[in-house]
Amino acid sequence: MSTLSERILGAPAGRYVDREVDVAFAHDGTGVLTREALREMGVESLPHPDRLRLIFDHIVPANTGTTATLQAELREYARVSGIALSDAGGGICHQVMSEGLVRPGMVVVGADSHTCTLGALGAFATGVGATDMAAIWASGATWFRVPETIAVNLAGRLDGAAEAKDLALAYVAELGMEGATYQALEFVGDGAAGISMSGRLTLCNMAVETGAKTGIFYPDEVTARHLGEYGLTASPLTPEDCCYERTLDLDLADVVPLVAVPHRVDTVREAEALAGTHLDQVFVGTCTNGRYEDLERFARIVRGKKVAVRTLVVPASRPVLARAIATGVLADIVEAGCMVAPPGCGPCLGAHAGVLGEGEVCLSTANRNFKNRMGVGGEIYLSSVATAAASALAGVIAVPEVV
Amino acid sequence: MSTLSERILGAPAGRYVDREVDVAFAHDGTGVLTREALREMGVESLPHPDRLRLIFDHIVPANTGTTATLQAELREYARVSGIALSDAGGGICHQVMSEGLVRPGMVVVGADSHTCTLGALGAFATGVGATDMAAIWASGATWFRVPETIAVNLAGRLDGAAEAKDLALAYVAELGMEGATYQALEFVGDGAAGISMSGRLTLCNMAVETGAKTGIFYPDEVTARHLGEYGLTASPLTPEDCCYERTLDLDLADVVPLVAVPHRVDTVREAEALAGTHLDQVFVGTCTNGRYEDLERFARIVRGKKVAVRTLVVPASRPVLARAIATGVLADIVEAGCMVAPPGCGPCLGAHAGVLGEGEVCLSTANRNFKNRMGVGGEIYLSSVATAAASALAGVIAVPEVV
Repeated sequence: MSTLSERILGAPAGRYVDREVDVAFAHDGTGVLTREALREMGVESLPHPDRLRLIFDHIVPANTGTTATLQAELREYARVSGIALSDAGGGICHQVMSEGLVRPGMVVVGADSHTCTLGALGAFATGVGATDMAAIWASGATWFRVPETIAVNLAGRLDGAAEAKDLALAYVAELGMEGATYQALEFVGDGAAGISMSGRLTLCNMAVETGAKTGIFYPDEVTARHLGEYGLTASPLTPEDCCYERTLDLDLADVVPLVAVPHRVDTVREAEALAGTHLDQVFVGTCTNGRYEDLERFARIVRGKKVAVRTLVVPASRPVLARAIATGVLADIVEAGCMVAPPGCGPCLGAHAGVLGEGEVCLSTANRNFKNRMGVGGEIYLSSVATAAASALAGVIAVPEVV
Repeated sequence: MSTLSERILGAPAGRYVDREVDVAFAHDGTGVLTREALREMGVESLPHPDRLRLIFDHIVPANTGTTATLQAELREYARVSGIALSDAGGGICHQVMSEGLVRPGMVVVGADSHTCTLGALGAFATGVGATDMAAIWASGATWFRVPETIAVNLAGRLDGAAEAKDLALAYVAELGMEGATYQALEFVGDGAAGISMSGRLTLCNMAVETGAKTGIFYPDEVTARHLGEYGLTASPLTPEDCCYERTLDLDLADVVPLVAVPHRVDTVREAEALAGTHLDQVFVGTCTNGRYEDLERFARIVRGKKVAVRTLVVPASRPVLARAIATGVLADIVEAGCMVAPPGCGPCLGAHAGVLGEGEVCLSTANRNFKNRMGVGGEIYLSSVATAAASALAGVIAVPEVV
C-alpha cells in the first residue's frame, strides 16, 4: 500500500530511482544558468526538446540592458534547440504549466523551488537546481530518493473569511520551516474535495516552505474539471491505506485569517492580532495567489472603494489577465486605484517592479518573507488575498469581513 | 498684434518678464533634486503649495530599494508640505496635468523637458531644470525671455494611415533638432481645427525636439470640448496678424507614415523605405502616444490577431487605462499577446520595464531615439501608433494600412 509519490515514482519511500521526466522547465533566471551549464558540459543537442520549456517570468519585461541581453540569448537558444518558449508577459512558470501542460501521474521538474505547486494536479512535481536541470535536459532523466510522506488530513470546509492561503499558513506554522525536509505532503481527508484547484495550487505551492520535496493532491472531480478546460481528462485516484510518516489533522472550520510576520514564513499570527500594523505597500500576485480566483476575490472586496496604500496586482498569467478583463474584475481593481503589472513574478523576489525602500512594510500574498527579499531593509508580511484586500482599503493590516 | 506666447506672458518677444506661475510640477526623478535644492537653499515653507504638484511616473513601481526610498521620502515631503501627489500608477505628469488641471492662458512649468505638451491646451507651458523649479516653488514666480514664434501653418486634413505623430515627425524633420531653439511653435491654419486634442498633445509634445520652449494651439471648440469633460470652460482665441519669425507651411494631406531612425529624432524616412527592418520590441505609450485615442487605434489594428514580436503597451494614465478596459480596447491588446505595464513612462528612458539588450532594436511611439536611451547598445526607431501596430503584427517595420 503506497503513497501517491510512491505510486508515481514506482518504488517505496527511501529507495533511489532513475526516472525519465515528463516535463522539465526553467525560467529566465535559472534558464541562463542551465544553458551555461550545458555549454560547459559540451552538450550540443537535447534528446527530448518537446519535453522542455522555457518560461520568462522572473524579470519581465527586462529591467536592465544586461537582463535583456541574457533573455535575448536564451530566446535564441530556445529557438535553435526547439524548446517551447513562453516569453515575457505569458505568466509565471508554475501557473503556465498548470494551464493544461501537467496531468496526474506525470513526473515534473522545474528549475524553481516552487515547482511543488504542480502537485495540485496529482503530478510528482519538484524543484531542482539549474545545473541539475542541465543534466536532465542532456539526458531526459534524473534520480530521485522517493520521499517519505506526511499526510495533511483535512476535515470540514473553509468558512468565514478564511481561504486556502490561510490554511497554507496554518500548516506551515504547524510543521515549521524544516518540519518536512525531503518529505512529501499529501493533502487527504474529506476536506480535500471541497478545495478548488486554485486553492490546491496555493496549498501545494507552500509545501517547500516546510522543506518538503512536494505537496500533492489525489486527482478527483475537481482535477478532472480543471483539466477538462484544456481538453484533457484524468481518472480519479484515492489514497490507499499506506504508511505515513506522520499525519497532521486540520479542521478547516478552525482556520481564520492568518499572517506570517517578518522574517519567517512559519511565524504566523492571527490577522486580528496584527490589525492596525502600518503598511507602505500591498502586493497581490505570485505563484501562490495570482490566479483568477484570487483576483476575483480581491476585486469583490475593493469594488467601488479606493485603496489607501500603494497597491500592486500582478496576474499570474496572460489567460488570468484576459479573463479578469472580460469579467470586469480588472476594471474594479484599476478603478480602486491599484497598479496592474504584466503577468510574471512581479516584485516577489525584489528584482524590479515594486521593490521596497529602507524600512518600508509590505503585505504580500506571496510565499516568502525572508529578510531583504523584496528590498534591503524592507519588511514583508504574508497573508491571504482577502486580508490583503481589506488591508489595502484600510492602509494598515486589517481583518477581512466574511465575503 | 501679438503671438499667443506674447499674449499670455504679456510682453513682446525678446523681453524678459517676471511671472507668477499657475502650476509648477515635478516628477519622481526631478522632484528628488528639487527637494534637495530647497533643502540646500534653506527653504522651509512654500508660499503656494496649492499650485504645486508631484507626479510619480518615471520609475513606477520602484525598480530598486534606492528608488523606493527616494520615492518614500518625496511622498512624505509632499504630505508635510501640502503638495498634491499623484502617486505611482496615476500616470505620466503631462498626461495627468492635461486631464483637467491646465486651462488656456495659464503659465505652466514642469521639471521635465516635455512640459511643452500642455501648450495643446492653449497654455504657455515649458520645462525647467530641477534647481530652477526649487526657486519657483520657493518664490511662486520665475522669469521668462518671451520667445519669438515660428508659425506651423497647417492646411487640409490628415488622411490615409497618417496620424498626428507622423505630422510631428514631419515638422521635426523640417525644422531640425536645433531649428527652433528658444522659440515657440504656434500651430495655426485651417488644418488645426481638424486635429483632436490627443493629436495636439502629440504635436506640442515634440516641440522641444526642435529646441523650442513650447508648442502651442489656440483654444477653440476642440479645447472647449476637452475641458468640458472635466467641468471646465474656455473662450476661443484666434491668431492675430502678428509678426512670426518664420512660417512653416504643411499640407496635412501630404503626410505619410514616417519613422525617425537611430539616433536622431530629425532623421526621418518614410515607413515604406524601412519596411522589413528587424525588430526585437515594439513599445506603445509615453507622453507622446499613450493616450486613449492611441490605445484605441492600436487595438483596432491588432484586434483578433497576434503580435509577432514582444510588444509592450503602457497607458499614459489611470483614466486612460480604465477607459481602455471599459471599452474592450485593453482586452484586444492583451489577447493579441501584448504586455500592459502600469501607467507611467515605461521603458522610454531606459530605467526599467522593457530596457533593450545589446544590439536589440525597438520601434517606439516615444519622442526620443538618442543612442543608448532605452539601453546600452539598443537602437530606437520612432513612429506613429498605426505603424507600431502594423509592425508588431509583422515582427518587422511595416507600413500601416488605411484604417
